[in-house]
Amino acid sequence: MIAVVGYYSTKFGELWERSLFDLTKEAVNEVLKQTALEIKEIDAIFFANMLAGVLENNLHSSAKLAEIFNINIPIFRVEAACASGGMAVFLANQYLKANTNKTVLVVGAEKMTDFSPEQVTYGLSAAASSQEQEAGLTFPGLYALMANFYLHKYHYNEENLAYVSVKNHFHGSLNSKAHFRKKIIVDNVLESPYVAYPLKVLDSSPISDGAAALVLTNDKEKIKKIKNKAILLSCNLATDSISLAKRKNLDEILATKIAAEKAFKEAKIKPSEIQVAEVHDCFSIAEILAMEDLGFWEKGEGGKLITQFPTMIDKGDRLIVNTSGGLKASGHPVGATGVKQVGEIFLQLTNQAEKRQVKNVKYGLTHNVGGSGGTAVVSILAVSS
Amino acid sequence: MIAVVGYYSTKFGELWERSLFDLTKEAVNEVLKQTALEIKEIDAIFFANMLAGVLENNLHSSAKLAEIFNINIPIFRVEAACASGGMAVFLANQYLKANTNKTVLVVGAEKMTDFSPEQVTYGLSAAASSQEQEAGLTFPGLYALMANFYLHKYHYNEENLAYVSVKNHFHGSLNSKAHFRKKIIVDNVLESPYVAYPLKVLDSSPISDGAAALVLTNDKEKIKKIKNKAILLSCNLATDSISLAKRKNLDEILATKIAAEKAFKEAKIKPSEIQVAEVHDCFSIAEILAMEDLGFWEKGEGGKLITQFPTMIDKGDRLIVNTSGGLKASGHPVGATGVKQVGEIFLQLTNQAEKRQVKNVKYGLTHNVGGSGGTAVVSILAVSS
Repeated sequence: MIAVVGYYSTKFGELWERSLFDLTKEAVNEVLKQTALEIKEIDAIFFANMLAGVLENNLHSSAKLAEIFNINIPIFRVEAACASGGMAVFLANQYLKANTNKTVLVVGAEKMTDFSPEQVTYGLSAAASSQEQEAGLTFPGLYALMANFYLHKYHYNEENLAYVSVKNHFHGSLNSKAHFRKKIIVDNVLESPYVAYPLKVLDSSPISDGAAALVLTNDKEKIKKIKNKAILLSCNLATDSISLAKRKNLDEILATKIAAEKAFKEAKIKPSEIQVAEVHDCFSIAEILAMEDLGFWEKGEGGKLITQFPTMIDKGDRLIVNTSGGLKASGHPVGATGVKQVGEIFLQLTNQAEKRQVKNVKYGLTHNVGGSGGTAVVSILAVSS
Repeated sequence: MIAVVGYYSTKFGELWERSLFDLTKEAVNEVLKQTALEIKEIDAIFFANMLAGVLENNLHSSAKLAEIFNINIPIFRVEAACASGGMAVFLANQYLKANTNKTVLVVGAEKMTDFSPEQVTYGLSAAASSQEQEAGLTFPGLYALMANFYLHKYHYNEENLAYVSVKNHFHGSLNSKAHFRKKIIVDNVLESPYVAYPLKVLDSSPISDGAAALVLTNDKEKIKKIKNKAILLSCNLATDSISLAKRKNLDEILATKIAAEKAFKEAKIKPSEIQVAEVHDCFSIAEILAMEDLGFWEKGEGGKLITQFPTMIDKGDRLIVNTSGGLKASGHPVGATGVKQVGEIFLQLTNQAEKRQVKNVKYGLTHNVGGSGGTAVVSILAVSS
């Protein structure tokens, strides 16, 4: 059995006075404090970060973290654009499957707001294909192509997308760690400026700083001793052509479908059994595609369903989505996002989600995407019985 | 049982007409051809690369490789500076320990020579601590500090270091894939210009392009079917403070000692049982430190021993080191190096090392280092009985 036994995230936002490793230190030290573990009890660290190399010429995090924490254990830096955090969870899960009595940290961190929008846009475009980069297809542009295709094919309009952001901003208002805590209405989204038609500022997740850390263990003694815990039933990763031009369908993320199918099979549960999910809403359209590709909604019906807020706290019932505020309101410090998603589900499964706690939660899911869908990671967690 | 069943490397050198992914494609396609495997039989890919983000704004390799090979399997990009390749081997080994009947590719690639020396020096310095970067301590400078300390403490001089390069250039002359195939003598090294006193051009590994790929499997049917195979007995990774200023001893790489101790324990053999080793000779001093830290030689005696060429083909006997030419002559395309090291030992253990074949080889070792020693990976392989 592999359990998540601790989670801490820094505040997400524009944290100009904090460095990448300041944030990392806070996340690690606080999650250790919370679990009453010492750093010497940690057997390995999986560290997710996308942009420190491009933005601040900062690589080789394994040795830098060894110095910060005065340790000599295996430390791994992984990168898969915005799915870096999910990839770190995947590899930590594999490490625990391969070894007995081990306890590991999964840490994700990103420092973005000290750099100019041009620098950050340039760095983020490193996730796209070289042809897309040359064509000037930034992330908003790539998701706008998918949004146009989806809206046209299923006869929706921009308003259908707006409900995603309204829901996630409401959830963000309940999360003290969220980048944005302001509630918004559909008109706010529709009146916000276009980034790439039909996507507007309020359809888009922000550029954020932040770090998040999880403790995972398969050590029975530690699992017994630590009170708050959730079981990691499965974590699966799939890939797909990074270029939109080479995808079969523009209204689905194939990598999500493959990863989800494997994750549900391994966890031996069905989508209908999930009560809370954190899905990758880098843009409003992304959450709608995710809900369909994960098997929660039929393909094409998401644009209609979302207008009833079925996945919003207080309004929805069966399945509540992105209680953290999602990438949209909670913020999107790239390397931290996939780690925070698992952390949010851990909070829900252990009744620690405060004002955004969903009742009677047994199973939760996380969904983390890299680039415009070239990498997807799906994890399923359960309450500890 | 985890076996290496295939290895291919491109030519290492200044390959101006080839891109990072051109080289990657060649390595993957050729290793698949060699093992008569189709890409559809591969369950995961572990991809090592250090600099594509910094030098060419190229990240998210997982999705880019998915596109190139038209696959949807898990693909992981890992980075630990010059130990990226070793880290990929480590994680592939863990993946195979965690899952049954799997076959994976480990691929390392780096494209460096299209960029100016200033750009490459800047990128490589990303592996060092921010204080060292600010102080202008490039890699040659960091290893020069260790070399000065070692030479002073054990009463050697620059000539003692030169023998490492003479040996490795001789080995490189026997390797058709090596960046440099020219034999050199001690006087050539001593007369070459200083890079950072006491290290000279011919004490230093070059900037190279290249890619290398391995097939690893725990699928009994595949192991049975494929003729050329070697057993991966152990692969261990350790870390240490990246800043030299925070190390306990400047005449040892602690991460190497820790990783080696674990690797020998797991493989259940002693250093004296190894007949071939590929050690991380980014500078001549690094090979001498490695030989001592790996337990082959006593601390401090390496400077004297090397002058007798005990680890050179035709001159040595018990243990031959860096038959590929090492980083010095074979070349050092950073992400590929750790993969090539395991590949060279595979060639030796399967009698495919041509003119540089060592006779009666039963056990081989690889040693891959990141930065100035902040990360070290040690693997031990055995002949397939």
